[in-house]
Amino acid sequence: MTTILFAAGRRLWAEYEVPLRTALDATGLDYHLTCEAAPETVDYVIYAPGSRLQDFTPYTRLKAVLNLWAGVEKITGNPTLTVPLARMVDAEGLTQGMVEYVTGHVLRHHLGMDAYITNTAREWRPVVPPLAGERPVTILGLGTLGLACAEALRALGFPVTGWSRSVKTIPGITTLHGPDGLAGALRSAEILVLLLPDTAATNDLLDAKTLAQLPRGAVIVNPGRGPLIDDAALIDALDSGQIAHATLDVFRTEPLPAEHPFWAHPKVTVTPHIASETRVPSASRVIAENIRRGEAGEPLLHLVDRDAGY
Amino acid sequence: MTTILFAAGRRLWAEYEVPLRTALDATGLDYHLTCEAAPETVDYVIYAPGSRLQDFTPYTRLKAVLNLWAGVEKITGNPTLTVPLARMVDAEGLTQGMVEYVTGHVLRHHLGMDAYITNTAREWRPVVPPLAGERPVTILGLGTLGLACAEALRALGFPVTGWSRSVKTIPGITTLHGPDGLAGALRSAEILVLLLPDTAATNDLLDAKTLAQLPRGAVIVNPGRGPLIDDAALIDALDSGQIAHATLDVFRTEPLPAEHPFWAHPKVTVTPHIASETRVPSASRVIAENIRRGEAGEPLLHLVDRDAGY
Repeated sequence: MTTILFAAGRRLWAEYEVPLRTALDATGLDYHLTCEAAPETVDYVIYAPGSRLQDFTPYTRLKAVLNLWAGVEKITGNPTLTVPLARMVDAEGLTQGMVEYVTGHVLRHHLGMDAYITNTAREWRPVVPPLAGERPVTILGLGTLGLACAEALRALGFPVTGWSRSVKTIPGITTLHGPDGLAGALRSAEILVLLLPDTAATNDLLDAKTLAQLPRGAVIVNPGRGPLIDDAALIDALDSGQIAHATLDVFRTEPLPAEHPFWAHPKVTVTPHIASETRVPSASRVIAENIRRGEAGEPLLHLVDRDAGY
Repeated sequence: MTTILFAAGRRLWAEYEVPLRTALDATGLDYHLTCEAAPETVDYVIYAPGSRLQDFTPYTRLKAVLNLWAGVEKITGNPTLTVPLARMVDAEGLTQGMVEYVTGHVLRHHLGMDAYITNTAREWRPVVPPLAGERPVTILGLGTLGLACAEALRALGFPVTGWSRSVKTIPGITTLHGPDGLAGALRSAEILVLLLPDTAATNDLLDAKTLAQLPRGAVIVNPGRGPLIDDAALIDALDSGQIAHATLDVFRTEPLPAEHPFWAHPKVTVTPHIASETRVPSASRVIAENIRRGEAGEPLLHLVDRDAGY
C-alpha cells in the first residue's frame, strides 16, 4: 500500500481528488490517497508552494515531493526537504497555455493591434506591418516552455533566437548561451520573451544595462517570473522610449499592489498571472505517472536540480 | 519580344518596376516592360482594380491579364475582358500576412486580451482562459488563404471547422460544404473567420438569420470581403449580445466612412484593410512566372473562374 498525502490545501483537494483517483487507478497501484495522514506513514506528498506543511522532518518514510506547479522557488530553500522534488511539467496545460499566451501577445505586438483595439484615432490610415519573417524575436530561457514557444513562433515565420544558461541546439532556431551570449541575444530582439526560472543568477537579469542592449523600441513580454526584471529600470526605459511596451504576467509581489506604477503606465499591459496554469486532469496524470515510476524504481520525471534552483 | 504593359498606375510602377525586371530577367525571356504601349502590341497586362484601363477591346494581341491583388470582383464583370485573368496568390505576402492577422486576432479573442489592453478595471482578477482545444473556430472559405489559416490554427490546437462551396477534404479539419453544411459550420463557431470571395452567392451571407445560428457570444473576424456581412444585422446582433465582438478589416465602402457606426461601436474593432497585402518582391516573381508559363504554352497559375467570380 502506497500512502499519498495531498498537502496542497482543501480548495485544490476539491478539484483534484477525483481526477487523481482516476489517474492513479489507471496505474494499477495499490494506493491510499488522503489529505490527512500520520507523517511517518506517508510515501509521497503532493504539494503546492502555499501549503501549511513546511516541516518535512517527521516524514521519515517519504520518497518524493511532487509539486503541482512549475515554480519551485519557494520550496527549494526548505532545509527539511531532503527527498527528491519534482516540479509540474504538464504539456497539455502549462505548456499549451504558455504557447497560446506567448504566440498571442507576440502577434499582438507584431501586428500593432493595440492602436486598433483602443481605437482612439478613428481614422483610416493603413499601415501594413512587416511579415513575421522580418520581426526577430528572442526568447530567454529554453526549458520546456521556452522551447515550445520558440517552435510555435518559428512555425509562424518569426526568426527566433533562444538564449539559455547552457549550450542547446534546436533546429531552425539561433541559440546562444551563457553570460557571453546574452548581449547578442538582446541586440536583435524586436520582441523579447522572458521564460527563465527565478534563481539567484536570473534575478534582475533585465536591468538598466541589459535593457539598453535591446534595439530601441523593443517590446518585452514576461510570462516567466517577476524578479527577472528590475521594475524601476523598466519604467525608466519605457519612459525614455527605449522600450516601446511591456506585457507582464508575473510580478515580484502578486497580486500586483494597487499602487504599483505598472497598473497605470500607458506602455504596460498587466495580465494577472494567467499565462499558464496547471490543468487538473493532465496534471493528475503527471503526478500518477511519477508515483508509478517511484514505486517501480524508475527515475522520476521533472526532478528539480536543487543547486540550480529549478 | 514579349510586350508587357504595366497598367496598375504610376504609384505602383514606382514600387514594382525594379522588382519586376529582376523577376523577369530571371526567367530568361526577351521582354519589353513598359507602362505605356500601343494596345495592339501588348501581350500581357499587369493590372490593378482601380486602373484607368477599362476597355480591353483594342488589345487585340492580349494573351492574359495578371492582377496584382487577390480580389477580382471589380474586374470579372468587365465584358471587354475576354482573355484569361489570373489573380494574385502570393504565398509569401498575401497568405503569410493573412495567417498572421487571423492567428493573431483569433488568439486575441481566445485569450480575452482586450480587457487587459484597455485596462479599465485595474484589478487583479485572474481568469484563466480555456485552452485552444476547447475553443472551436470555424473558417468560411477554404481557398488558399482559408486553408493556410485553418492549418495554422489547427497547429496551435484549435478545433477547426472549414466550410466551402464545394466538397473539400483536409486532414485534421472538419469540413462542411454547400448551403446544407452552413448551419452546422456556424453552430459550433465560438470564433468565426470569414475568408470567402465576394460573389453574388456570398453577398450578405452573414445576415440576421445566419448570425442567429452562431452560438451566443460568438466573435466574428472578417478579413475577407466587406459585402459578406449585412452591416445593420451585425450591429443588431452586437447590441443584443448574440455576437460578443466583431473585428473587421474589410468594408462595403473603403475607407470606412467617418459616420459609419462601426467606428464608434464598443464591440467592433476596425482595421484599415491591412490583413493581407501583396508584397512587391514575391508578387513580382508570381507575375514573371505566369508570363514565362504563357510564353512556354504552359497553363497559367491562379486563373479566375469567370462564372464563379473568383
